[in-house]
Amino acid sequence: MVVSQPWAFVALLSGIISVGVATWLYRWVNRQDAGSERAQEVASWIREGAQTYLRRLYMALTLVAAVLGIIIAIVFSFDIENLGMDMATVDPVRGITMALAFVVGAVCSAIAGYMGMSVAVSANVRSAVAANESINRAFRVAFYAGSVMGLAMVGLAVVGMSVIYLMTGDPEIILGFSFGASALALLAKAGGGIYTKTADIAADLVGKVEVGIPEDDPRNPAVVADNVGDNVGDVAGMGADIFDSYVASTVAAMLLGASLFIHDSALQARYTLLPLVLCTLGIAASLIGIRFVRVGQSGKPGRALNSGTIITCALFAAMATALVLVGGYNLGVLWATLAGLVTGVVIGFTSDYYTSSNFRPVLETAEVSGSGSALNIITGFSYGLISVVPSILGIAIATLLSYYLSELSGISGIYGVSISAVGMLSVSGMIVSSDAYGPIVDNARGIAEMAGMSRDVIDRTDVLDAAGNTAKAITKGFAISAAALTVLALFAAYAEVVGARGVQLSISLRNPIVIAGVLLGAATPPLFSALTMLSVTHNAFDMIGEIRRQFDEHPGILAGTEAPDYAACVGLAAQGALTSLVFPAFLAMVLPILIGIILGPEALGGFLGGSIFTGVIFALLMSNAGGLWDNAKKFIETGEFGGPGSDAHKAGVVGDTVGDPFKDTAGPSLNTLITVMSLVSSLFAPIIAAFHLF
Amino acid sequence: MVVSQPWAFVALLSGIISVGVATWLYRWVNRQDAGSERAQEVASWIREGAQTYLRRLYMALTLVAAVLGIIIAIVFSFDIENLGMDMATVDPVRGITMALAFVVGAVCSAIAGYMGMSVAVSANVRSAVAANESINRAFRVAFYAGSVMGLAMVGLAVVGMSVIYLMTGDPEIILGFSFGASALALLAKAGGGIYTKTADIAADLVGKVEVGIPEDDPRNPAVVADNVGDNVGDVAGMGADIFDSYVASTVAAMLLGASLFIHDSALQARYTLLPLVLCTLGIAASLIGIRFVRVGQSGKPGRALNSGTIITCALFAAMATALVLVGGYNLGVLWATLAGLVTGVVIGFTSDYYTSSNFRPVLETAEVSGSGSALNIITGFSYGLISVVPSILGIAIATLLSYYLSELSGISGIYGVSISAVGMLSVSGMIVSSDAYGPIVDNARGIAEMAGMSRDVIDRTDVLDAAGNTAKAITKGFAISAAALTVLALFAAYAEVVGARGVQLSISLRNPIVIAGVLLGAATPPLFSALTMLSVTHNAFDMIGEIRRQFDEHPGILAGTEAPDYAACVGLAAQGALTSLVFPAFLAMVLPILIGIILGPEALGGFLGGSIFTGVIFALLMSNAGGLWDNAKKFIETGEFGGPGSDAHKAGVVGDTVGDPFKDTAGPSLNTLITVMSLVSSLFAPIIAAFHLF
Repeated sequence: MVVSQPWAFVALLSGIISVGVATWLYRWVNRQDAGSERAQEVASWIREGAQTYLRRLYMALTLVAAVLGIIIAIVFSFDIENLGMDMATVDPVRGITMALAFVVGAVCSAIAGYMGMSVAVSANVRSAVAANESINRAFRVAFYAGSVMGLAMVGLAVVGMSVIYLMTGDPEIILGFSFGASALALLAKAGGGIYTKTADIAADLVGKVEVGIPEDDPRNPAVVADNVGDNVGDVAGMGADIFDSYVASTVAAMLLGASLFIHDSALQARYTLLPLVLCTLGIAASLIGIRFVRVGQSGKPGRALNSGTIITCALFAAMATALVLVGGYNLGVLWATLAGLVTGVVIGFTSDYYTSSNFRPVLETAEVSGSGSALNIITGFSYGLISVVPSILGIAIATLLSYYLSELSGISGIYGVSISAVGMLSVSGMIVSSDAYGPIVDNARGIAEMAGMSRDVIDRTDVLDAAGNTAKAITKGFAISAAALTVLALFAAYAEVVGARGVQLSISLRNPIVIAGVLLGAATPPLFSALTMLSVTHNAFDMIGEIRRQFDEHPGILAGTEAPDYAACVGLAAQGALTSLVFPAFLAMVLPILIGIILGPEALGGFLGGSIFTGVIFALLMSNAGGLWDNAKKFIETGEFGGPGSDAHKAGVVGDTVGDPFKDTAGPSLNTLITVMSLVSSLFAPIIAAFHLF
Repeated sequence: MVVSQPWAFVALLSGIISVGVATWLYRWVNRQDAGSERAQEVASWIREGAQTYLRRLYMALTLVAAVLGIIIAIVFSFDIENLGMDMATVDPVRGITMALAFVVGAVCSAIAGYMGMSVAVSANVRSAVAANESINRAFRVAFYAGSVMGLAMVGLAVVGMSVIYLMTGDPEIILGFSFGASALALLAKAGGGIYTKTADIAADLVGKVEVGIPEDDPRNPAVVADNVGDNVGDVAGMGADIFDSYVASTVAAMLLGASLFIHDSALQARYTLLPLVLCTLGIAASLIGIRFVRVGQSGKPGRALNSGTIITCALFAAMATALVLVGGYNLGVLWATLAGLVTGVVIGFTSDYYTSSNFRPVLETAEVSGSGSALNIITGFSYGLISVVPSILGIAIATLLSYYLSELSGISGIYGVSISAVGMLSVSGMIVSSDAYGPIVDNARGIAEMAGMSRDVIDRTDVLDAAGNTAKAITKGFAISAAALTVLALFAAYAEVVGARGVQLSISLRNPIVIAGVLLGAATPPLFSALTMLSVTHNAFDMIGEIRRQFDEHPGILAGTEAPDYAACVGLAAQGALTSLVFPAFLAMVLPILIGIILGPEALGGFLGGSIFTGVIFALLMSNAGGLWDNAKKFIETGEFGGPGSDAHKAGVVGDTVGDPFKDTAGPSLNTLITVMSLVSSLFAPIIAAFHLF
C-alpha cells in the first residue's frame, strides 16, 4: 500500500530541513578557530580515542545488526497467523522489508550518534579557544554543536519513519525501524556508560589516589579514555537514548492509531499519521527555540538554556492547539499532548530540586558528610528514593489525564496515553541540544587545563560547565518519564498486536502466571543495573593494572619526558565495555521472547509490566541520587563544611564516585532496557501468540 | 455461630502447650547463675534501658490501638453491604467483636515481644557467665532463651486464632486479630529499627571516631542505648515481624478456605480450619526440633542450629503428609505445603550465599575495599541487587507450583498459594528460636567486654556470635519470602472479599487506573525505606548532641570517675523513634484506604500489587546488601586484605555503617509494611466496595 497523504510529505520535508540545519551548524562549528598547536594536539588525542571506540562499537554492532536482521527477515517471511493451516503463505518481501527497516533504524541511530560525537570532539577545543574571547562566544560554539546532535537526531528519526510510512503504509514495519534504533541505543548507552566510568574510576584511583597527580593531567595514560568517555557516554549515549524513545513513542502511537476507526480508512490514516505530524511541529518549534538561546550581557548560560526550553514548549503547545482546532482532530488529542508536555517539563524541573545545591537534599547530604562517608551515602540514597515519588506521581497523573480526557472526548484512551508520550518527546530537538551542550563544555574545561590555557579561560569554562548540570538533570528526568509513558503505550500496543492475532489478553494480577511474570519482570532492571555496575568495577581493575604497568615500565611518563600510551587504555576500556554487554543484551532481547514462549503471552504482559515499574523507579533513583552526590561534592568544593581537602570533602568524593556508575552507567540504560523489551515483545508478539494458540 | 470441631480444640491445646513450654524455659533461664555483681550491674543497665523503651513504646501503642479499635468498632457496626437500603442494619455486636479481636491481636503480639525481650535481657548475662564454664553451656542458655520467644510467639498466635474461631466461626473476625498483630508489628519493627541504629551510629561516631574510646566502653553514654537496641530491634522486632506473617498467612488461607465448597458446610469448615491444623503440626515439629539442638563435643553452634532447622522441617513434612493422607484432604494441599516449605528453606540458605564470607560476593567486596569506600559500596550494592533474583525466582516457582498442583488436584489454586505460605511459616517456632539466639549472644559478648571478663570467655562468646549470623541471614530470607507469599494470598483474599460484595474485580494491567495504582504502590516501599533511614540519621545527630553535652558538662565521665546518664540517651532514642513513625504509619494504614476510596477498588488492587513487587525487591536488596557489608568488614577484621586498621578496613567500616540501616531499619520493616497494607485493604474492603457501588 502506498500512502499519499500530504502530511507524510510535510513530515519528510521537516526531517530533511532538520538534518540540513544540523549539517550547516556542523560546518559552522568546524570553521571556528581550533586554537594553538598544543590545544589541537590535546583535542586530537580525544578525537582519535573517540574514533577508536566508535569504530569498535560499530563493528560489533554491525555484526549484531546483521544477525538480528537475518533472523527478522526469516521470521517475518512466514505469515505466522496462518502457519500450520497453509504452509504456502510464505512472504519473503515482508520479511526483507522488516529486516531492512530494522537495519535502517540501527543505521539512523548510529549516524545521529556519530554526528553528535564528531561535532562534540571538534567543538570542545573550539569552545575552549572561544572562551579566550568571551563566555558568550564559547557558549554559542558549544550550544550549536549540541544542536547538531539534537537536530540530526529528530531529523533522521522523522525522515526514516516518514519514508517507511510513505513506502509501505504499515506501522508494523516502522516497529522494525524502532527496534533497530532501540537495539543500537541500548548497546551504545550501556556500552558507553560502562566505558566512561571504567576510565573515570581507573584514572582517578591510580592518578589522584596512588601517584597524586591532578585530574586531567596528561601524564595519566587513562586521561584520554576518561575524556573520550564523556563524549561516548553523554553525547552519543544520551542521543541514542532519546532517539530511541522518540521513535518508539511515535511508533506506538501510530500502531494504536491504526487500530482506531477500522471502518473509515481516511479517519484511520489521519490518526495513524498524527504522531508524525506532532513530530513535525516539534521540529519547527525546536528550530525556532534554538535561535532564541543566547547569552546576553548578563552572561547566564543556565538561564539561556532554560528559556530556550520554555520557548520551544510554548511554541509547540500553540502549534498543536492550532493543528487540532484547524485540522478538526478530536479534542482529546490536544489534552493528551498538553498533559504529556507539561508533565515532562514539570518532572524535569522537579528533578532539579533533588539534585541542585539550592535545595535541602543536596545541602543536607553535604552537611552530614562531615560525619563520614557512610552518612553521605545513606542520606543521598534516601533522598534518591524519595525523588522517585514526584516523578511517579507525575507519570500516573499524565496517564490518567490523557486516558480519561481522551475517552471523554470520544477517542480511545490508550491512544491518548501514547499521544501524551509523543507530546512530551516532540520537543526532543531542543532538549537534546541543551543536554549535549553539557559534555562539550565539560570537555572544553578539560582541554583548557591539559593545554595549559590561562586561569581566566578555565574560570569561564567552569561557569559554562555548571550551567550544563541543570540541563542534564532536566533531560534525565524528562527522558525517564517520557520512556515510562512510551513503554506504557508500547505495552498497550503489545496487547493490541496479540489481540489482533486472536489471543484475548487479560493481564490480570489475579492470575498467578501474570504474577510470576511481573515478579520476574520486576527483578530484571535491578539485575541489569547490577551487571553493568559490576562490569565497571571489573573493567576498572583491568585498566588500573594497565596504568600501573605503563608507569612501572616507562618511568619517563611520570617524569613528563615520555608520552603515555593513551590508545592502550582506550582500547582496553572499549573491549571491556563491549564484552560486558553480552549478558545484558541477552536479558533485553532474548529473555522476553523466552518468557512469552515458555510461560505464554499473559505472563509476558506481566513481565513487561513488572519491568516497567521497577525500571522507572530504579532509573529515577540512580540518576537522581548520582546527580545529588555529584553536586553535594561540588558544593563542598566551593568551601562549605570545610571545603576542599576536609573530611567532608573526602566523604563527598566517595559519594560522587558511588554516584558515577549510578547516574552514568546503570540509571540511564534502564529506559532503553524497558523500551527494547517492550519493542521486542510487540515485534515478536505474532510469533508468541502463534505458539500459544497451538 | 459456634464451631465445635475437634481440630480447633487440638490447635488451642497445642498453643497452650507451646506457651507453657515457653514459660517453663523462661523460668529455667532465670534460674541460671547471673554472675558477679559487676556483670549484674552492667546487665541491669541494659535491662532497665530496654524496659524504658518498651514502656514508652507500649504506651504509644496503647493509644494507637485504642483509637483504631474505636474506629473499627464503629465502622464494623454497620452492615455495609446493605447500607443505604436499610439503615436499620446496625450490628454493634459485630463491631465490638471485631474491635476486640483487633486489640487481642495487638496484645498477643506485644506479650510475645515482651516475653522475648525480657528473657533476652536476662539471658545475655547468664550466657556470658555460662561461657566461663563451656561453649556448650553458654549456647544452651542463649538458645533456650531464644526458644522462649519462638514458642511464645507461635503459641499465642494459635491460641488467639483458635479461641476466636471457636467463639465466632468467622475468619473475617480473625482478620481483625491479624490486623492488630500486624499494626503492632509494624510499629515495633520500624520503631525498633530506627531506635537501634540511632543509638548504634551515634555511639560509634562520638565514641570511636571523636573521642577514641573502644566499642562497648561503659564511659560512652550511648553504649546502653546501643545494647538495648540490639534487643529491641532484633529480638522484639523480628519476633513481632514473624508473628505478623504467621498470623496473616493463616488468616488469608482460612478466608480463602471459607470461600470453598460453599454448598457443603462440613467440607468448607474442614478447609477453613486446615491452616490452623498445619500450625499445630508445626508447633509439634518445633517442640521436638528444639530438643535436638545441642552443641556436642565438636563445639559447632552453627551446625547445631542448622540441623535443628532441618530436623524440624523434615518432621513437619512427615506429619503434614500423614495428615493429608490419613485425614483424606485433597492432595493439592500437600503439594502446596511442601512447595512452600522447601522454597522457604532453599531461599533461606541461598541468602547465605550472598552474605557469607565463604563465597564470592562478600570476598569480592572485601577485596575491592582496598581501593576505597566507593568500590566497596558499589560492589556490595550490586551483589545486593543480584541477590534479589534467586529469591524472586523461588517465590515465582512456589506460586506457580502451589497454584497449578492444587488446580490439577481439583482444589482452588489460590487456596493452594495461601497454604504454601502457611507451610513455609509453620516451622516459625524453630526459625524464630534460632534467630533470637543471635542478639542474645551478641549482647553476651558486649557484657563480657563491659564487665571485664577473661579473654577466654570473650573468645567463646565470639564463636557463639558468629554462629548467630548465618541463622539470622536464613531467617531474613525466610521471613521475606514468606511475607511475599502471604501478601499474594492476602491480595487474593482482598479480591475475594470485594468480589463477595458484588464488585467484580478485574485488576488488569491494561486498565490505566490499575496502572496508576501499581505505580503509586510501587513507589511506596522506597519512600517508606527512605523515611525510616532519614529518621535514623536525624535522630543520630540529636543523640550526638546529647553525648557531647554530657562529655562537656561532666568531664568526670571520660576520666571514668563519674557515671554517664544512660537513661537520657535511651529516652532520646525512644522518643525520636516513636515520633518518626507517624508518617510511615500513615503510609501503611491510611494511604491504601484513601487510594481505594478515591481511585476505586481496582486501583487499590493495583496499588497492593505494586507495593508487593517493589516491597519484596527492596526488602531482599536491603537485607542482603546489609548482611554482605557486615560480613565483608568482619572478614577484613580477620586479617585479610590488610586487616584491622588498614585502608580496606576503613572502607569496610563505611560499608557496614551504610548497611546498618539497610538491614536493620528499612529492609525488615518492608515485609510488615506490605502485610499491613494488604490487611488494611482486606479489612476495609467492604467499605471501599460500598463507596464504589454508590
